[in-house]
Amino acid sequence: MSHSQSMTPVRYHKIRTLLSKRQPDLTLLLEEVHKPHNVSAIIRSADAVGVHRLHAVWENNRPLLRSTAMGSQVWVDMQRHSSAEDAITYFKSQNMQVLVTHLDQNAVDFRKIDFTKPTAIVLGQEKTGATSEAIAMCDYSIAIPMLGMVQSLNVSVAAALILYEAQRQRDNAGMYEHNRLSEEQAQLVLFEGGFP
Amino acid sequence: MSHSQSMTPVRYHKIRTLLSKRQPDLTLLLEEVHKPHNVSAIIRSADAVGVHRLHAVWENNRPLLRSTAMGSQVWVDMQRHSSAEDAITYFKSQNMQVLVTHLDQNAVDFRKIDFTKPTAIVLGQEKTGATSEAIAMCDYSIAIPMLGMVQSLNVSVAAALILYEAQRQRDNAGMYEHNRLSEEQAQLVLFEGGFP
Ligand SMILES: C[S@@+](CC[C@H](N)C(=O)[O-])C[C@H]1O[C@@H](n2cnc3c(N)ncnc32)[C@H](O)[C@@H]1O
Ligand SMILES: C[S@@+](CC[C@H](N)C(=O)[O-])C[C@H]1O[C@@H](n2cnc3c(N)ncnc32)[C@H](O)[C@@H]1O
Repeated sequence: MSHSQSMTPVRYHKIRTLLSKRQPDLTLLLEEVHKPHNVSAIIRSADAVGVHRLHAVWENNRPLLRSTAMGSQVWVDMQRHSSAEDAITYFKSQNMQVLVTHLDQNAVDFRKIDFTKPTAIVLGQEKTGATSEAIAMCDYSIAIPMLGMVQSLNVSVAAALILYEAQRQRDNAGMYEHNRLSEEQAQLVLFEGGFP
Repeated sequence: MSHSQSMTPVRYHKIRTLLSKRQPDLTLLLEEVHKPHNVSAIIRSADAVGVHRLHAVWENNRPLLRSTAMGSQVWVDMQRHSSAEDAITYFKSQNMQVLVTHLDQNAVDFRKIDFTKPTAIVLGQEKTGATSEAIAMCDYSIAIPMLGMVQSLNVSVAAALILYEAQRQRDNAGMYEHNRLSEEQAQLVLFEGGFP
């Protein structure tokens, strides 16, 4: 006890501070995002805006890689689902709006969305995009405007642009100024992180 | 002539439209950004907000890869410089503000910058960040706020967040509503693209 106290007060303070900024009602669903460097970049951005837990649909026999370079720095959980339907049903049970990033004609500009509401955002696979099953279940399609020749952005870039728009709106709304994680959830994270 | 007209009117119109949105006074300098997937993601984002030409410092004997997957979709030029000093001196001769992305204590929040001014943004290498030579020559250090444990964002993510903040400000200021590229520059692009 005195050992862990002398070893880690700075780190403990840092983690306490980041937990006080966490946004438990903001998350992403990665629908078969395959490339480890994309998954790693998405985890970094999610951590940076206070996402507490990410969700992913991926095959049982394919390991979802985390970049080892990130190591013990990573304090974002990843929850696996066997299908997009499963994940989206879960989000709806939590009264979240569910948005899918998809460049169709009816897609809403991402800056027009109210991200202060509880929100889950579905990101599609690098080549094929989000599945039609996911698109059919979501409340809106959202898109980031593109003014050039290229058809789509890198998936980790798209994720970050949307998350930082959410961060901007939530910051303006004062949502980073008080604890939004319960003390019970915070204690769980501290316990897993080795703080008794 | 009648051949090229019958083959390409849709494509010609598309390219004319994108050229009318181009922002010749907004650019990035990639200072030894090494990974092809990062360079590729940055080029896609640059194209999407209307950057007309990118700049890069890189070793003579190392090819600066462009993802072949992007192929003929890419209409963004890349200009090579032998040093950051060389590139930044060039930007200053064009009366551009030169900003370096760098997480020091004096860094300005990227959203506080006026991106309607002619602007060049320096991005650093994946491991080591921007060089001290570049930092010393720039007008400001700018940073994207981070509220978690991870120390930095992926470089292509950082580039996109800054470019889309610039796009938002320039869109509000009406800078995408009229041609900002000279007709001479536009003709040059069309010529290189095979439009006689
Ligand atoms: C490379 S894109 C997939 C492109 C695929 N050909 C399609 O038509 O959906 C991979 C993922 O990045 C995200 N994405 C890319 N560009 C986007 C944009 N402009 N707006 C919203 N999401 C985008 C979406 O999550 C998409 O599923
Ligand atoms: C992975 S970072 C380099 C980290 C390096 N250890 C350092 O201290 O600079 C690579 C590049 O991404 C950009 N970058 C990453 N996170 C950023 C942030 N929060 N704000 C601004 N730029 C960032 C910068 O251009 C940086 O040079």
